[in-house]
Amino acid sequence: MGFFGLQSTELLKNGELKNINNMNNKTYLYGRNPVIEALKEGKGVEKVFLSFNASGDGISKIYTIAKSKGIQIVKYDRRKFTDLEKKAGIPSRESQGVIAQRELIKFTALEHLLDLNVKTNSNPIIVALDGIEDPHNLGAIARSAECSGARGLIVSTRASAPVTPTAVKASAGALETLRTAKVENLGSALEEAKEEGWWIVGTDLNAQNSYTDAIYDKPIVLVIGSEGKGIRPSVKQKCDYLIQIPMRGKTQSLNASVSAGVVLFEILRQS
Amino acid sequence: MGFFGLQSTELLKNGELKNINNMNNKTYLYGRNPVIEALKEGKGVEKVFLSFNASGDGISKIYTIAKSKGIQIVKYDRRKFTDLEKKAGIPSRESQGVIAQRELIKFTALEHLLDLNVKTNSNPIIVALDGIEDPHNLGAIARSAECSGARGLIVSTRASAPVTPTAVKASAGALETLRTAKVENLGSALEEAKEEGWWIVGTDLNAQNSYTDAIYDKPIVLVIGSEGKGIRPSVKQKCDYLIQIPMRGKTQSLNASVSAGVVLFEILRQS
Repeated sequence: MGFFGLQSTELLKNGELKNINNMNNKTYLYGRNPVIEALKEGKGVEKVFLSFNASGDGISKIYTIAKSKGIQIVKYDRRKFTDLEKKAGIPSRESQGVIAQRELIKFTALEHLLDLNVKTNSNPIIVALDGIEDPHNLGAIARSAECSGARGLIVSTRASAPVTPTAVKASAGALETLRTAKVENLGSALEEAKEEGWWIVGTDLNAQNSYTDAIYDKPIVLVIGSEGKGIRPSVKQKCDYLIQIPMRGKTQSLNASVSAGVVLFEILRQS
Repeated sequence: MGFFGLQSTELLKNGELKNINNMNNKTYLYGRNPVIEALKEGKGVEKVFLSFNASGDGISKIYTIAKSKGIQIVKYDRRKFTDLEKKAGIPSRESQGVIAQRELIKFTALEHLLDLNVKTNSNPIIVALDGIEDPHNLGAIARSAECSGARGLIVSTRASAPVTPTAVKASAGALETLRTAKVENLGSALEEAKEEGWWIVGTDLNAQNSYTDAIYDKPIVLVIGSEGKGIRPSVKQKCDYLIQIPMRGKTQSLNASVSAGVVLFEILRQS
């Protein structure tokens, strides 16, 4: 868990002491220029928080770069911004009204994850998340995926929980070893996967196929939906197969990471 | 989740307003006579907390009855006891130095759970926990068990987490519908199960049998061990079969509730 060992200040490669704080296992970067630099480098920033009254050339620049890279900007009122400064351990006024939250893991490009020219022993499996809002669940699913030897994970900025310290912890290390791609739109990502030769399998409570049917002799992207709502209709449309795990009890559904585990190990059993 | 709706005072069947408080989703009973009564009734009390300086006839009685029923007594110093009073919302001095924590679910007697004369459609399954210390995990395993149609759950006072509000919540209702037996000693309970005609199957990382082997055409007690340590050697000795789920990833093990789900649904698949 090398990441959690980050010091409260860190000597970067150019020899400068940068404004980096790590509290509650989250890492924040602050101050206008450090955040602009990090945004320009194009990696490592998950979200930018701006104070309600932040303005000027630096702030305009941050807006422009963040927008061009699809990075979320959140504007906080005075109280919320001060709370965040405290939580992140940033000395008062040193933030200059700008705090960036850094990504906890290094993401993989979707095209690398989908590349079927990379040799594998059997048919590869990728797990994709749709509507999994709880970071605990995201981490738990990553753990199940990693244990079953899945090639990787697809999360989306809009339709799944962010990779928070809670998620990393719940994954028991899996999020740090499993290759994970973050996409803007899961539907488009699944389209891309289909073009590359992957078959899309989604879990659905009312599906006709059972998860034990012999449908897995191909490269599979397994889409796991939220426990309550399942997979969104727009994503369901992209699925080549919809499968269900027959329930015998009175409670409505399995935990999403258990569903993922049951299906993934059934795929392995068939292989 | 009827339990969580409990009011801070509750009219019991004899018409008296009893000293019952429910804070943080925990229920406490307090005062010497109410606790003695509850202990005598022989059900519903999980643990008794005594203030360090509590003494007298009532306290001796509480010791005697609790001991005879195998209910744990915990002595708290002044600070800890005052903290508990506050947490439970008990007005100062009204506890008379005695607070009882009530059980959150109604337990089933082991012999009822094991009774094979009760008709079932297929071979019944019971899940037993060994060394599961995290209430979250206990709840999650109960949920997996309930969804797979398991007949019930065996927990033990010493070798598994208590059924806390966290466990009940994590079970998503399963702990309130699944029949659960609480035993003092899991090894003895498994012996009893064997005598009644059950076969004991335990998960073990180094087992020779795979969980997909055809060994489930009988009444099964499935023992789930802790993620780190697995099943204790003394419990392993009672197992007719040890099985393992072959791991393909780099992380060490599945979450215990996922392991339980994978094995339980494999048993269903074979049935």
